[in-house]
Parts: sequence; C-alpha cells; structure tokens
Amino acid sequence: MEKKNYAEVLIDGKIYTLGGAEEQEYLQKVAAYINEKIGILKAQPGFTRQNMDYQEVMIYLNLADDYFKTLQETKMLRAQKEELEKEVYSLKHELIGVRMKLDEKLEKQQGDLSGSSRE
Amino acid sequence: MEKKNYAEVLIDGKIYTLGGAEEQEYLQKVAAYINEKIGILKAQPGFTRQNMDYQEVMIYLNLADDYFKTLQETKMLRAQKEELEKEVYSLKHELIGVRMKLDEKLEKQQGDLSGSSRE
Repeated sequence: MEKKNYAEVLIDGKIYTLGGAEEQEYLQKVAAYINEKIGILKAQPGFTRQNMDYQEVMIYLNLADDYFKTLQETKMLRAQKEELEKEVYSLKHELIGVRMKLDEKLEKQQGDLSGSSRE
Repeated sequence: MEKKNYAEVLIDGKIYTLGGAEEQEYLQKVAAYINEKIGILKAQPGFTRQNMDYQEVMIYLNLADDYFKTLQETKMLRAQKEELEKEVYSLKHELIGVRMKLDEKLEKQQGDLSGSSRE
C-alpha cells in the first residue's frame, strides 16, 4: 500500500493542504522555492499591475526556465561522465598492457638469474 | 548591447508576447512544456472544478517538482563525475608508477646487454 502524506503549505500567501507520496519536508522545500520565485517577480517594478493571467504565465515561465537550465546541466554532466568513463576504460586497458610488459621483463630477469646460477 | 528577442507564445490558450535575451526557439520549447504540464493536470478528473487558486498552485507545484527532480539528478551526476575524476587521477598515477618500473627494467637490460658485449 502506498503511503500518503499530508502537508499544509503556504504558497503565495494562501494555505493549501497537499496529499501525496512526497514527504512533508520535500513539499515545504518546493513551496519555499515557489514563494521565492513569486517574490522575485512581484518585486519587479510594475509586475503586480499587470493582469493576473500575465502574472501567472510569468511565474510558469520562471519555474520552467529553472527546470530547462538544470536539464541542460544534466545533459552536460552526462556527456562529461561518459567521457570520463571512456578515459577510465582506456587507462585500465593501457595499465594492463604496461603491466604485462613489466611482468615479461621480470620473468625474463628471473629466468636469466636462475640461468646464471646454473652456470 | 544585449540583444532582445521577441516571441509570441501560446500558453494555456492565450497568446503572450515575451521579450528577453532568450531565443525564440527556447521560449517556444518552454511554452510547449508548460502547456503539456497544464494539459496533464486538466485531464485529471475534477481538476478544472477546483478553484482557480488551487489550479494555479498545482501547476506551480508540478513545474517545481520537475525542477527539483532534475536538480537531484545533477547532484547525483556531479558526485559520479567526481568519483570518476578521482579514478582517472589514481589510474594515471598507477600508470606512471608501472611505466617507471618498466623503464628501469629496460634500462637495466640495456646496461646488461652493453655490459655483456664489452666482455
């Protein structure tokens, strides 16, 4: 059975009761973030004199902009991670090669030593 | 001078003219995403019968949720990237060590060879 959490959150000056799978703490964090975004917009000169639809859409756009900017960052990070994984793979491959050569030399040396002791 | 772009976007059935540093294409992409989010919510039974404030707040929460989920992913990717960077550093260090040992052996062998030729 899925656990349902309830949380009272304050958004844009009004209290809402939210129910869902998310933790209280998470919902409060999301609410605080939304309030911060709304606060920044409302502090802009003339913003609250615009019609309500415009204000709403500006809030949507600012929230969505944060999402897209972060999405862009994940894409960049995923590409960097892929590059690093390739580098790790290639370094491991190189390391095996150099180790094999070293082992050959050591074995040869061992052979030479036991050969010379037999002399 | 900063370039200002203008774009007409359709959000929630209304046309808005947006001006800003962002490219047309980006604004259209963001608008399409917002419309998709609103569409999903409006398709939920009873959603449009809720009062407007509630509907707005649900849209905010859904947009912000995507942002926080993506933010979580960037944190995870950044941590993975850091681990991989450490691994690359450590592998490079190891490779230098093994290469030095191999070079020593090769020099020794070279020395032995020239030594034996001098005998």
